[in-house]
Amino acid sequence: MQDLDVYHRTESFYEDFLECRQLLAPFFGAQRLPLLLTASGSGAMEAAVTNFTNRDDSVLVVVGGKFGERWLKLCQAFGCKIKVLNVAWGNAPTPDEVTKQAEGTRAVFFQANETSTGAFFPVEGICRSLRSSGYNGTIVVDAISALCAHPIAMDNWGIDCVVSGSQKGFGVPPGLAFVGLSERADSLFSTRERFYFDLRLELKGQAGGRSAFTPAISLILGLKTALHAMHQGGGIQAVFDHHLRLATAARASCYAMNLKLFAEHCPSNALTAMTVPAGIDGSQLLKSILQNDDAILAGGQDELKGKIVRLAHLGFIDRLDLVSGIAALEFGLQAKGHKFELGAGVAAAMAILK
Amino acid sequence: MQDLDVYHRTESFYEDFLECRQLLAPFFGAQRLPLLLTASGSGAMEAAVTNFTNRDDSVLVVVGGKFGERWLKLCQAFGCKIKVLNVAWGNAPTPDEVTKQAEGTRAVFFQANETSTGAFFPVEGICRSLRSSGYNGTIVVDAISALCAHPIAMDNWGIDCVVSGSQKGFGVPPGLAFVGLSERADSLFSTRERFYFDLRLELKGQAGGRSAFTPAISLILGLKTALHAMHQGGGIQAVFDHHLRLATAARASCYAMNLKLFAEHCPSNALTAMTVPAGIDGSQLLKSILQNDDAILAGGQDELKGKIVRLAHLGFIDRLDLVSGIAALEFGLQAKGHKFELGAGVAAAMAILK
Repeated sequence: MQDLDVYHRTESFYEDFLECRQLLAPFFGAQRLPLLLTASGSGAMEAAVTNFTNRDDSVLVVVGGKFGERWLKLCQAFGCKIKVLNVAWGNAPTPDEVTKQAEGTRAVFFQANETSTGAFFPVEGICRSLRSSGYNGTIVVDAISALCAHPIAMDNWGIDCVVSGSQKGFGVPPGLAFVGLSERADSLFSTRERFYFDLRLELKGQAGGRSAFTPAISLILGLKTALHAMHQGGGIQAVFDHHLRLATAARASCYAMNLKLFAEHCPSNALTAMTVPAGIDGSQLLKSILQNDDAILAGGQDELKGKIVRLAHLGFIDRLDLVSGIAALEFGLQAKGHKFELGAGVAAAMAILK
Repeated sequence: MQDLDVYHRTESFYEDFLECRQLLAPFFGAQRLPLLLTASGSGAMEAAVTNFTNRDDSVLVVVGGKFGERWLKLCQAFGCKIKVLNVAWGNAPTPDEVTKQAEGTRAVFFQANETSTGAFFPVEGICRSLRSSGYNGTIVVDAISALCAHPIAMDNWGIDCVVSGSQKGFGVPPGLAFVGLSERADSLFSTRERFYFDLRLELKGQAGGRSAFTPAISLILGLKTALHAMHQGGGIQAVFDHHLRLATAARASCYAMNLKLFAEHCPSNALTAMTVPAGIDGSQLLKSILQNDDAILAGGQDELKGKIVRLAHLGFIDRLDLVSGIAALEFGLQAKGHKFELGAGVAAAMAILK
């Protein structure tokens, strides 16, 4: 009845829905349009596990942080036979390691970007190595925090399933998850029971812009706006360039603040994790930054609790946001007695962001 | 970094989250605070099935419309042994029928409000009859479109699980689902595999305002605002009274337009389904209303396609919205040649809404 309301069972909304799928596809590097689900990113991860494995199927899970552990817990919850490739937190697996362990498994699960450590895994190298070794199983990549910060080329690299979400690179509030699928995915589906996350059902309905269940209308309309903004101007290459520039600046600031880069061999373009100097408690540092400057930086979790700070530069974060975040960190470090030249981090970042 | 952003891992957001749970509880009639899930209502329905049944468990499903069919499909997908109590669309089951069929089952699934037909099921009578017969299984009620329109008293009536969602009575965009649980629910949980919809996990975290997975932040903040509005003024009894008044007006308008009430023996306070007169195609009627007045009324689905129109009066719909919806229907009916006095429906409604 109300003009401001949007009803999702209308031709006009089906068009909005399809437009989102079309504008998302280049970020997945996929011909096939990604599916939209009303869920957190973890819902899409569950969809990948339940749609591509049966109980007792052998799978390989790469665990190099909290989100690798999430793949592990999911595969455990759904009764897969699991080989785990453990990677020291802050490091990335090599293509060789993954390929060797993957042999004989039905599916391989790993992160593109391990948000908990700031490490970016060599997705292209891993996938090319797997496929050139003859691996014919399902390759599933969690790119929840990677899309927009790093180019992903599902079709070229031979990835079967990429999961992502609204609230990281796309800068939309959380509540929408995305699932990109390869052309051959239809022949890879398992027979396991599923309902809310049944991707075959969604493929059918979403071809016409119709989700099986009531979609998160407001988030989809927000996503459409965000995607149009990203496709304008320099297009999606400009989005990748922007993230690389911010990441390069954040890394330069890290060294200039006399800190060590945590994932120094494989730093992500989505966030930068820095090692908190010995003698300073990272959790206390973040608390003081929040109190003094109302700025939120993330800390480490579990074994990294108190040991790293994580500075995000993903989504609609611009160079001034990054500079102010670095400044907040500098003020906090100085208050805790860390030795460095106040302003050096900001200056180093600005030299790159100019 | 940005002051306008809200981060969900903060004390302030945990408080907002808990406040939503507390303000929701009276609508469930439950001491235990309802859980919030990031999903459509169907996600909460899946949670009820997977958390309270194991494969091969015997269950009773009441099917009196599209949403009864959804319970059925869910229980089929997850391998339950199903007894179906079929109810003619537009009717409601009797407490006796349900109680007789429920014997020996682990769980009973039914709707409070069957949105596809506009029928309200006698939830209190069914539950009291089940419990006084000694039924000790899990009673699960889909109240997605019932909450706010009808009082539900989980604890008093002996319901174990009530599912609902943000976008119906609460007037918030879709994307949040709610699950109310009885005190004894802990002893009813099944052992079936689950992860994203693991209610035990959510009970633990949400006690402190922490959802297991990233919540739909913007929808939760919207919900908080909506719930405060509903608790103000006359409180939640005023919300129920408001819906009853609108429903009574809609029913009066139905007769005044010379139409038949579809679910005449058990009409819902959330919406009113009216039978389209013989010789008029309901789908064409709704199309002409959309074209002429940009007003959306819902039609019938499946066996009811073209045969009913459904007028919603749920959530933040006020009396002027209802009057304008009835007027749109009157214009449409007149254009299709239906015999009645133009304006009679609106007048009959206004006499009640005054």
